[in-house]
Amino acid sequence: MRKILIIGSGKSTSYLLKYLLNKANTENLFITVADLNTDHAKKLINKHPNAEVKTLDVFDAPARENAIKAADIVISMLPARFHIEVAKDCVRFKKHMVTASYVSNEMQDLDNTAKKEGVILMNEIGVDPGIDHMSAMQVIDRIREDGGKVILFESFCGGLVAPESDDNLWNYKFTWNPRNVVVAGQGGAAKFLQEGAYKYIPYHRLFRRTEFLDIENFGRFEAYANRDSLKYQSAYGLDNVKTLYRGTMRRVGFSRAWNIFVMLGMTDDSYTIDDSENMSYRDFTNAFLPYSPNDSVELKLRHQVKIDQDDIVWDKLTELNLFDATKRVELKKATPAQILQKILSDSWMLDHDDKDMIVMYHKFGYEKDGEKHQIESNMVCIGENQTYTAMAKTVGLPVAMATLAILNKKITTPGVHIPITKEIYEPILEELKSFEIKFNEKEVPYLGYNPLNS
Amino acid sequence: MRKILIIGSGKSTSYLLKYLLNKANTENLFITVADLNTDHAKKLINKHPNAEVKTLDVFDAPARENAIKAADIVISMLPARFHIEVAKDCVRFKKHMVTASYVSNEMQDLDNTAKKEGVILMNEIGVDPGIDHMSAMQVIDRIREDGGKVILFESFCGGLVAPESDDNLWNYKFTWNPRNVVVAGQGGAAKFLQEGAYKYIPYHRLFRRTEFLDIENFGRFEAYANRDSLKYQSAYGLDNVKTLYRGTMRRVGFSRAWNIFVMLGMTDDSYTIDDSENMSYRDFTNAFLPYSPNDSVELKLRHQVKIDQDDIVWDKLTELNLFDATKRVELKKATPAQILQKILSDSWMLDHDDKDMIVMYHKFGYEKDGEKHQIESNMVCIGENQTYTAMAKTVGLPVAMATLAILNKKITTPGVHIPITKEIYEPILEELKSFEIKFNEKEVPYLGYNPLNS
Repeated sequence: MRKILIIGSGKSTSYLLKYLLNKANTENLFITVADLNTDHAKKLINKHPNAEVKTLDVFDAPARENAIKAADIVISMLPARFHIEVAKDCVRFKKHMVTASYVSNEMQDLDNTAKKEGVILMNEIGVDPGIDHMSAMQVIDRIREDGGKVILFESFCGGLVAPESDDNLWNYKFTWNPRNVVVAGQGGAAKFLQEGAYKYIPYHRLFRRTEFLDIENFGRFEAYANRDSLKYQSAYGLDNVKTLYRGTMRRVGFSRAWNIFVMLGMTDDSYTIDDSENMSYRDFTNAFLPYSPNDSVELKLRHQVKIDQDDIVWDKLTELNLFDATKRVELKKATPAQILQKILSDSWMLDHDDKDMIVMYHKFGYEKDGEKHQIESNMVCIGENQTYTAMAKTVGLPVAMATLAILNKKITTPGVHIPITKEIYEPILEELKSFEIKFNEKEVPYLGYNPLNS
Repeated sequence: MRKILIIGSGKSTSYLLKYLLNKANTENLFITVADLNTDHAKKLINKHPNAEVKTLDVFDAPARENAIKAADIVISMLPARFHIEVAKDCVRFKKHMVTASYVSNEMQDLDNTAKKEGVILMNEIGVDPGIDHMSAMQVIDRIREDGGKVILFESFCGGLVAPESDDNLWNYKFTWNPRNVVVAGQGGAAKFLQEGAYKYIPYHRLFRRTEFLDIENFGRFEAYANRDSLKYQSAYGLDNVKTLYRGTMRRVGFSRAWNIFVMLGMTDDSYTIDDSENMSYRDFTNAFLPYSPNDSVELKLRHQVKIDQDDIVWDKLTELNLFDATKRVELKKATPAQILQKILSDSWMLDHDDKDMIVMYHKFGYEKDGEKHQIESNMVCIGENQTYTAMAKTVGLPVAMATLAILNKKITTPGVHIPITKEIYEPILEELKSFEIKFNEKEVPYLGYNPLNS
């Protein structure tokens, strides 16, 4: 039996476990799921004979070490900041490791030792990051092999609510960590390349510089720029590309409405509001508006951010009860971002029967034989229910497939990796198709950057 | 002879030295000015027999200690972050010390030791902070002694160009550290109290939430909120006040135009621009605008920040050569804020004959015998020339007067101080009048917060 240790059993482990348990007999696998809270894992495993659940505190070093020593390969599904201790043990005990998280600086620092010890540390093999890397590199490599030169690459991804569950004015619900949504884009200007020029967008303009994307059968989406679009420029071999842009997808109109929160200062996470505990939602809104005793909070807000009488954006705000004087914040010493997250969570939690949706969109521009070409490619994945979500599917399946590929010595190069080489992406993208995770690709006339908006 | 050591001899030492040298004979003073560069001090002293200039590197601990040991009192005119080492030596060698800078946490930590050693560490006794503390506390104390209860305090100050030298569309020139102007308001939301409610303004809205102030013979000014208006709430004894607001004064229209830089992201000091060295001013402007090959940088900017064809704000931008393709940034790896500072410095440096101006404005609201009253008070000081500036006058004179008052044992309480007690402010405010630094005060009907805008 090959022993797989999965540390952490949160939301995104459902498909991961399902895939591995389905292969447990044919592939001769035994799976141990270790977490502080074992309830979710027990439900998912449902007494499968090839699996067990263990209580593990990842900060209990001896217990963690023993669990890792007993395994053949380790999957860490912990929050990203906890991977590093697991990774160090993995290198020490010569166990391969797989995560769906971004490579931290500390993780990257293990590269030399991992290579020396023959250990594979595979990261960023979920959806974004993960499927985006793989699907992009597949097309980029193909263009190059055909003698083309990539001059433009734009890549977009979003975690959204599925059309059949989309029943609010924002066309949005929280399908993942709400906090990440509230503070998205903060911490510095967004930076990208457009036709050879570096462009910068300050946070407070980010949600007003969107572009539109159409996906057949799913209609129109919009996207705002990620903070650092140039992060993978060298890794993808795109040092000479003219346009490089990575963005986050939302339904049309989301960003313009979200920008109201940004303008008012409601997404700020850097200070706490005095007496937040006793505030109503209306008080919270009023804290960002001038004192004016004879005017309503409503009119002051309309005036401050210039919302016309017939603008649907207003209905988006009232839908969230932002002016409700009876609903209370009830959070002590909370930042504006924390309070906003609470207000949004009232309205944007998935209902029991709601389904989520992952959308991805790539644009590739290239030159070949003196002519410019463009390929556009997109993928939509819809969840089954609140356990088997699209997020869990697109994160968990590539992780599971990579784990098996390492066990079966299909992936053999030691060191710290992200899935940008053919050895990794080809078999996984191929297998993902059988799970209805596939890209629709088409050649279009070369349009260059953002033709709808320019 | 009483020996005064002045460490640092920058722009703000001219009046300080002039005042002390004028009193040198009657008060029996000998003044040593110590700095790395002694040129400015030599010119100011002009071979006065009661003064000398010494070369001193403030980081050379033995030399610094010897200089301090030889003095009876020390004035530190160094940049604020360098005071602390001087202050530590002063406590050690039992020498009083005077600075015009904000009390840092490290400085405050010396309070107990200074008290034990009988040493006075007097800070914030320039203009803002300094004259603002003194002039405000004088009125606040008087209201209280008359049986009134302060319910509102607003205080505004600005360093501007004098009307006779005011010859650009912004009605502004750099009269002090340009960097502080470029990054003003950054680092967190502005926070203040309006009629009992805490109010918060995010940085990117700060310059759109101004209020107007009129000063007889000088016309209308505007003010935007300082970051933390509540900083001196307890020190001033205003814990139960309903409205507390501190602001920075500019000429009308400055803030609306400045907000364009904020909106575009040009004031950001948190990242560096790629290839800034080779950019033109036009390239810099274009870096914050979308790529759109068939449109001009001008129209893209007008469109992005919504500037109408007939809006004077446009002329303010062109006056600064923001669209000039021939002027070059020539700064390596510069932040947007550094580049903007350079561009502004081209246009906003004081000419040789230009005069600067300090304006200050206080509003006090109070209740007495069941009725509400309001006092407004303002001060305008205009510089003589580029050496004897209003800034140097309003910073240097209070520092000099406090120094003499300590030497003459008129101020005797040891510890870390700011000038908010009668013992300190009464004689200094009285003497400042003879230098034409005086407040015009009037009773007005109680208006409460910001009546023009609400």
